[in-house]
Amino acid sequence: MTINAPRGTQDILPGTSEKWQYVEQKLVDLCRRFNYKEIRTPIFEHTELFQRGVGDSTDIVQKEMYTFEDRGGRSITLRPEGTASVVRAYVQNKIYGLPNQPSKYFYMGPMFRYERPQQGRMRQFVQFGIEALGSDDPAIDAEVLSLALNSYRELGLSSLKLVLNSLGDAESREAHRAALVRHFDPHREELCSDCQVRLDQNPLRVLDCKKDKDHPAMKTAPSILEYLNDYSKDYFEKVKSYLDAMGIEYVIDPNLVRGLDYYNHTAFEIMSEAEGFGAITTLSGGGRYTGLVQEVGGPETSGIGFAMSIERLLMALEAEGVELPVDEDLDCYVVALGDEAQVEAVRLADAMRLAGLQVDKDYLGKKMKAQFKSADRLNAKYVLVLGEQELENGVINVKEMATGEQKEIELGSVIEYMKEQMAGGK
Amino acid sequence: MTINAPRGTQDILPGTSEKWQYVEQKLVDLCRRFNYKEIRTPIFEHTELFQRGVGDSTDIVQKEMYTFEDRGGRSITLRPEGTASVVRAYVQNKIYGLPNQPSKYFYMGPMFRYERPQQGRMRQFVQFGIEALGSDDPAIDAEVLSLALNSYRELGLSSLKLVLNSLGDAESREAHRAALVRHFDPHREELCSDCQVRLDQNPLRVLDCKKDKDHPAMKTAPSILEYLNDYSKDYFEKVKSYLDAMGIEYVIDPNLVRGLDYYNHTAFEIMSEAEGFGAITTLSGGGRYTGLVQEVGGPETSGIGFAMSIERLLMALEAEGVELPVDEDLDCYVVALGDEAQVEAVRLADAMRLAGLQVDKDYLGKKMKAQFKSADRLNAKYVLVLGEQELENGVINVKEMATGEQKEIELGSVIEYMKEQMAGGK
Repeated sequence: MTINAPRGTQDILPGTSEKWQYVEQKLVDLCRRFNYKEIRTPIFEHTELFQRGVGDSTDIVQKEMYTFEDRGGRSITLRPEGTASVVRAYVQNKIYGLPNQPSKYFYMGPMFRYERPQQGRMRQFVQFGIEALGSDDPAIDAEVLSLALNSYRELGLSSLKLVLNSLGDAESREAHRAALVRHFDPHREELCSDCQVRLDQNPLRVLDCKKDKDHPAMKTAPSILEYLNDYSKDYFEKVKSYLDAMGIEYVIDPNLVRGLDYYNHTAFEIMSEAEGFGAITTLSGGGRYTGLVQEVGGPETSGIGFAMSIERLLMALEAEGVELPVDEDLDCYVVALGDEAQVEAVRLADAMRLAGLQVDKDYLGKKMKAQFKSADRLNAKYVLVLGEQELENGVINVKEMATGEQKEIELGSVIEYMKEQMAGGK
Repeated sequence: MTINAPRGTQDILPGTSEKWQYVEQKLVDLCRRFNYKEIRTPIFEHTELFQRGVGDSTDIVQKEMYTFEDRGGRSITLRPEGTASVVRAYVQNKIYGLPNQPSKYFYMGPMFRYERPQQGRMRQFVQFGIEALGSDDPAIDAEVLSLALNSYRELGLSSLKLVLNSLGDAESREAHRAALVRHFDPHREELCSDCQVRLDQNPLRVLDCKKDKDHPAMKTAPSILEYLNDYSKDYFEKVKSYLDAMGIEYVIDPNLVRGLDYYNHTAFEIMSEAEGFGAITTLSGGGRYTGLVQEVGGPETSGIGFAMSIERLLMALEAEGVELPVDEDLDCYVVALGDEAQVEAVRLADAMRLAGLQVDKDYLGKKMKAQFKSADRLNAKYVLVLGEQELENGVINVKEMATGEQKEIELGSVIEYMKEQMAGGK
């Protein structure tokens, strides 16, 4: 009568967890260099936060949230994404009042969406993301784009495409919206029922429709880029000039839109162009937003951010055949023979570990040959053998596994000796 | 209309999150040296797992779990602790069949208990723990004790007390149980109502009672140590001899008991003896168990583990006044004056970051003086100034903030120059 992990969740086991550690450390270090600081928000929030911050009309809020009542009768939701929580923390902790602005954050941790599990889409998945709050300088848009792209590049990915668009400011979007309605209205009856509603409520989302994507009116739909006012045009030009200066290539796609009214100006996605990566090629997405901080109770503040799934990042690494430099070899394996040697082996292994060496030994009462086999399976670089004879002479036999070379080393200096060997890059 | 984080949860903000990162990295590195590998299990599990693995009669399962139905009608629970999940993963992934045994794991992540929040007790808290499954060699008990103790020591804590006990094997515990019933039965009516039930169901837990702790019969209660059979006595002696060999001090406390039948032999707690640490002085607890793997559907396997709360670890560091070596200073702050210089500053900051330097700049269109003030507040070690004049001459002005010393460096070589400065330990 076994119990399995819930559907859409997974165990990350040794052999894989080292890759996660490596990737996460790389991302943390990249953020450190860009001066983005870590923020950790709770796994669950009051449900209202996501209704307001993600949007009541979105699929996420309507269909995909893990919402429940806690023992005190409050409606609680496992976070489906990171931005709303970061903004909530920014407001609750009154960070907008601190002198160092903009506030640049990164976060990393599990998110939860009740969707049909498929390759690269789990119900619990890990997101890494950043948010920069309190600046609408196009230079920070460029910074965020560089950070997003280099998150992949520094891990060794190269088949990447940065897709960029501008959604303009409120005035530009209103002009575009009117143009979209004028364009699609004559075809209203030919569109799907969802799109007929969208046409009245949020015509931008018609461009996103999967059912109507082949309708001829889609191709000729007016582009937001034609409706950018001077400020928005200038903003977009500046972002592009910074990207050019940084040597970052991008493709403009006027159909890259966002469903929510919060979004404005810069919007982007990073796609994998690796062969065999699968149907969903988007690795991460992000963009600039305004109004969100106000929605959660703070002062008017604009922000920009992006989020990526670590699961999809690891899939992309696999698709491109990138081997992460994860060292799973053991430094030393201590073989002990006899009860007295066992006590000394326990002491020695402990002392070596505290001195910085990666050490293991047998805990199953195995015979010498089987202990050597264990050492081999753990890829031990050195095997240290301690029998009654060695113990009596105060020495230990050190065998380098790669060469088969053996040496007797005094017990009192074997830790120093092993540290030297390891420092020598062996 | 602000929305706050749910009661009993917290935001970990920059300034504090760096401490978490430091502590976690230290613990990960300690585990690496002891050859414990990371396992990550889902945030929630089927409720049944905890009913079986933690125990239906425990306070945790009866009163403190975040249990809810998912959209598919399954009963799901946010994990209240780590051991049951690790054991579930061990069984589900058939790890008991792999050649490398014992299986040595560590885990780190949020756990959830619906309790009254107080200092050092949150509803969401982070546990670090380890489990070693598949060996009942007393040497691994000693290894686990060393790992637990050194988790604190390596971070700089010294006011620590290791409290040790043996619960013996099933035979010893049965003999002790009978002795406890004989001892307390004459006082049955004087004990609290809970203890009257405990006396029939699990007399060991009477020793744990907070209400009856001053009853005279408590002091004279028979100790488990008097009822250890030869195997259990020998096991305990071996654990102690290994601890002695490793130079680890401990205090034996025969009243250190565990409520559940799974536990046997080694049981321990680590307490802080720091002044002003607060009412609850336990930092971590652990011990040996058997039967748990079977309960979850696997073969008979014994294990040992411990868990600690990172929140309490940080409290202990504070109580002992330990300063973690967390460097929050910035390497360089780039000051740009004028539109052209701004483009070059964006490029240079990006290039420096990708070269490994920690760099920031202004994103609020501030004047020079205000930019210097920002650099100061961010503890920048160097400020690099780029105006129209510098740009024309292809140079940049580098000011070392500690000394006030200024130099003009060619733009083409400033990255190399800054890397040298930082490598020089400045």
